[in-house]
Amino acid sequence: MTGFSLSDLEAIVAARAASDDAASYTRKLVGRGVGTCAQKLGEEAVETVIAAMAGDAVELRKESADLLYHLLVLLHVSGVGLTEVMDELAARTGQTGLQEKASRPAD
Amino acid sequence: MTGFSLSDLEAIVAARAASDDAASYTRKLVGRGVGTCAQKLGEEAVETVIAAMAGDAVELRKESADLLYHLLVLLHVSGVGLTEVMDELAARTGQTGLQEKASRPAD
Amino acid sequence: MTGFSLSDLEAIVAARAASDDAASYTRKLVGRGVGTCAQKLGEEAVETVIAAMAGDAVELRKESADLLYHLLVLLHVSGVGLTEVMDELAARTGQTGLQEKASRPAD
Amino acid sequence: MTGFSLSDLEAIVAARAASDDAASYTRKLVGRGVGTCAQKLGEEAVETVIAAMAGDAVELRKESADLLYHLLVLLHVSGVGLTEVMDELAARTGQTGLQEKASRPAD
Repeated sequence: MTGFSLSDLEAIVAARAASDDAASYTRKLVGRGVGTCAQKLGEEAVETVIAAMAGDAVELRKESADLLYHLLVLLHVSGVGLTEVMDELAARTGQTGLQEKASRPAD
Repeated sequence: MTGFSLSDLEAIVAARAASDDAASYTRKLVGRGVGTCAQKLGEEAVETVIAAMAGDAVELRKESADLLYHLLVLLHVSGVGLTEVMDELAARTGQTGLQEKASRPAD
Repeated sequence: MTGFSLSDLEAIVAARAASDDAASYTRKLVGRGVGTCAQKLGEEAVETVIAAMAGDAVELRKESADLLYHLLVLLHVSGVGLTEVMDELAARTGQTGLQEKASRPAD
Repeated sequence: MTGFSLSDLEAIVAARAASDDAASYTRKLVGRGVGTCAQKLGEEAVETVIAAMAGDAVELRKESADLLYHLLVLLHVSGVGLTEVMDELAARTGQTGLQEKASRPAD
């Protein structure tokens, strides 16, 4: 198991977008603007759909990783923080992480 | 800020998919199978693309939340764990969460 | 076989978009603007992908029909004529319809 | 104006898919199977959505042409004829091409 989180990924995307490393894929993508970033997100979603329909778990894992990465790039280039998105999810599921933890039986 | 994580969301999706609550949207979606779940993922990706292109940050936040939720439903119905996806991301970004933390300057 | 063509469909879309029939789906869609029309096009494409991956020929036929209809609605609302699109295709395939017909063996 | 039709394009796709021209893009695409063809259809749909949202008519024309081409490739590889799709559209719009022509005022 990894301790790697979406929040770690957001930090990495931000760092690479701000870097002066000409070889950085993230930097190039961000430099091309929201249209290119949105297109990549859409393409990865299509590939995720196809991997799921093909019942290919290995491919689904990889495409889901691509999808998450490109979502974070799109959020970055659009000035939307991951925390805002997670707050939206917390509000919809009717509980914050803290409340959820508090409601767990002690173990 | 919320402490809500994708891992919390995965647990909620699993709990609702396994529940006998006939009113649960997650349960219905999972019950309809991978085709319906993949379709919803695709639709939410399209809406995310459109919100980003429209420069609508509020809508982008909401659609990104929908996209993440439907991705977790699709992973659940396909038997792929979020940890596998996060491991894939950690491997690609060249560091695990632990390594990244260790490499941060003390502050 | 039907004599129905994409050009017939374009005329029908234009007529319904311009009609005062409040029950017309086309009119409603056009009235909601390019964002909604683009979203529908994207959704139908996802459904077409899923039908193809599921190997469901009946569903693929239906979803392809939906996709073509929503493409024509999107072109209409965006002020792009079908002829422009077909000209583009003719140019790419390296021949116009006329040239292609001329090159067919007499029969 | 061009006389080029979707039916012409279908014939070209079929001819190229059956050709032994190793340089043919259509032949390569068809050779890679339904997954790749569906993926390309999905990608072109995303690009069509983005061009429409960007209000870029030139790009929308090009992407729509790509979308139509890749739809015909997907139909070909899936064994669904364009006529079946057009029949579906004719049935939905409540008239065949012939009926529509018959109902036009003489001019």
